[in-house]
Amino acid sequence: MKEFQLIRKIQQETSVREGKDSDAGVRLGIGDDAAVLDLPPGLHLVASTDTLNVGVHFPTDTAPVDIGHKCLAVNLSDLASMGAVPRWVLLSLSLPTADSQWLQSFTTGFNSLANRCNVSLVGGDTTSGPLSVNLTALGVIEPGMQLMRSGAEPGDLIIVSGRLGGAARVLQMILAGEETSQRHLLDRPIPRIKLGQALVGFASACIDISDGLLADLGHLVEASGCGAHIDIGELPAAEILDDLEDLSSWQFQLTGGDDYELLFTLPCRHEAMLGKWRAELNIELAIIGRITGGNTVVCLSPDEEEFHPEIPGFEHFRSN
Amino acid sequence: MKEFQLIRKIQQETSVREGKDSDAGVRLGIGDDAAVLDLPPGLHLVASTDTLNVGVHFPTDTAPVDIGHKCLAVNLSDLASMGAVPRWVLLSLSLPTADSQWLQSFTTGFNSLANRCNVSLVGGDTTSGPLSVNLTALGVIEPGMQLMRSGAEPGDLIIVSGRLGGAARVLQMILAGEETSQRHLLDRPIPRIKLGQALVGFASACIDISDGLLADLGHLVEASGCGAHIDIGELPAAEILDDLEDLSSWQFQLTGGDDYELLFTLPCRHEAMLGKWRAELNIELAIIGRITGGNTVVCLSPDEEEFHPEIPGFEHFRSN
Repeated sequence: MKEFQLIRKIQQETSVREGKDSDAGVRLGIGDDAAVLDLPPGLHLVASTDTLNVGVHFPTDTAPVDIGHKCLAVNLSDLASMGAVPRWVLLSLSLPTADSQWLQSFTTGFNSLANRCNVSLVGGDTTSGPLSVNLTALGVIEPGMQLMRSGAEPGDLIIVSGRLGGAARVLQMILAGEETSQRHLLDRPIPRIKLGQALVGFASACIDISDGLLADLGHLVEASGCGAHIDIGELPAAEILDDLEDLSSWQFQLTGGDDYELLFTLPCRHEAMLGKWRAELNIELAIIGRITGGNTVVCLSPDEEEFHPEIPGFEHFRSN
Repeated sequence: MKEFQLIRKIQQETSVREGKDSDAGVRLGIGDDAAVLDLPPGLHLVASTDTLNVGVHFPTDTAPVDIGHKCLAVNLSDLASMGAVPRWVLLSLSLPTADSQWLQSFTTGFNSLANRCNVSLVGGDTTSGPLSVNLTALGVIEPGMQLMRSGAEPGDLIIVSGRLGGAARVLQMILAGEETSQRHLLDRPIPRIKLGQALVGFASACIDISDGLLADLGHLVEASGCGAHIDIGELPAAEILDDLEDLSSWQFQLTGGDDYELLFTLPCRHEAMLGKWRAELNIELAIIGRITGGNTVVCLSPDEEEFHPEIPGFEHFRSN
């Protein structure tokens, strides 16, 4: 299969609504040198890019249908953490060979999530190379309303959606050759798009958890110029951690990457919103600590002792 | 060096003008989960993405300063071919190791062109993996004014900017281990941004030459539903082809990729604009043929014989 056929195949399989649905704002989709997009008047553009490499961001045996899901989920999670409404994505795919079965499966996973999240694929690029998927996600937001890492204030509640540590535990099991029925925790993260949008106007800061709770909380408090206390006993452990010792479970919850839950801070006066969001969005929201005036993050175990996890969060590069 | 330090380093070295220059429209730049961008009212967004992989899109010995230039040039060339005004770019960089010297050099090349073209780097992502550079370029255009591959009509002049075949010849020499002083033809393409903008309202169709003249002309005539005659004697050969036999030189000009010149069609009534553009933009513009009513592309040699080049244009993938 040739490059142009590949791009066409993706185009045919995906939900580009050029010309068909004026709400999608796609004035020119895949097939030319660039896409032309019409933003609703008065909104700002929100743009994020992420690359997933085989063996780095997903195990080599990951099913293409899951790679298709995850690459999109990871990017939409970035828009979710800003409170943006996702609209369009551009996909750049490096493949060792043009394997139409692989592509069919990838496209199925990609498409299913794209349709669910109402985003249109508007640009495509396929190249020869080691398996690598890059996505740029584009969304919109009211001017000045984006959630940022900065903005948290001492006293604010620290809240996390969903469960923690599941993806990292699954990855560990896979690498150890253990069986697991919970592979979806690693392969099928759910971008918290509706939650992100609900938080606009309420949360003082927000980030998505890609590198691990402590690593991403570190970015948030650094950007906000504050510190944090985390109550380990309040962390929402993924069920797959139930058979582990406490220390090991805490470790996964505090430092495991790839959960793609939202971590946000909320001024106490908005605490009542939590019940509303839980009910309306059918989502778990746990208060796991408070922002402090210092510049350190302290994790307190259920018996009020400081806990220092061993792994300082996920890093793509080692020092050189 | 850690990932976050890498991103910061790129940020410090690049020309993000967040907050400093309201014209850049960057409401939130690198450092959060996504960038927030303010489009001038009434304009459409133009978006394009491209990945360059080592050993596929550039030789393994390419200097990082040239990789920095070329990855941006290639993407801006896509916006140029639409007639768009480039504004912002997002960069996703996969590196085997976090080498700060490599990054310094890459950034120098990237930055120099970004400043020249007045674009701001607004998003960054660095990952571990085989050397690969993805860029998403974002620009703006008046609604409905984009140049497209479709729109060429029988009788329209076919015009190409600059010189052809130089990049492919240099690549051949490198692969054969020959010395050349013209490596810039391969490593330092110039995106024809001002030309693209000048063509808006005049050219009937436009594409940039990345895969080779005939391959890209093929896309243009297919999208336009027409054919073409090319006068090989009118092709603007790169000087580096001067010492080759005619047939070999034609081959490079017709099928060599990576020149990133603009190929466009112009209704005859606008022919007088060519002189104006040549003078104002200090650019070579050669009339190399005409659009025809058929659906084939015919190349005529100076003695009016049909020439069929051997290589059907560059393809990233072979059939499988």
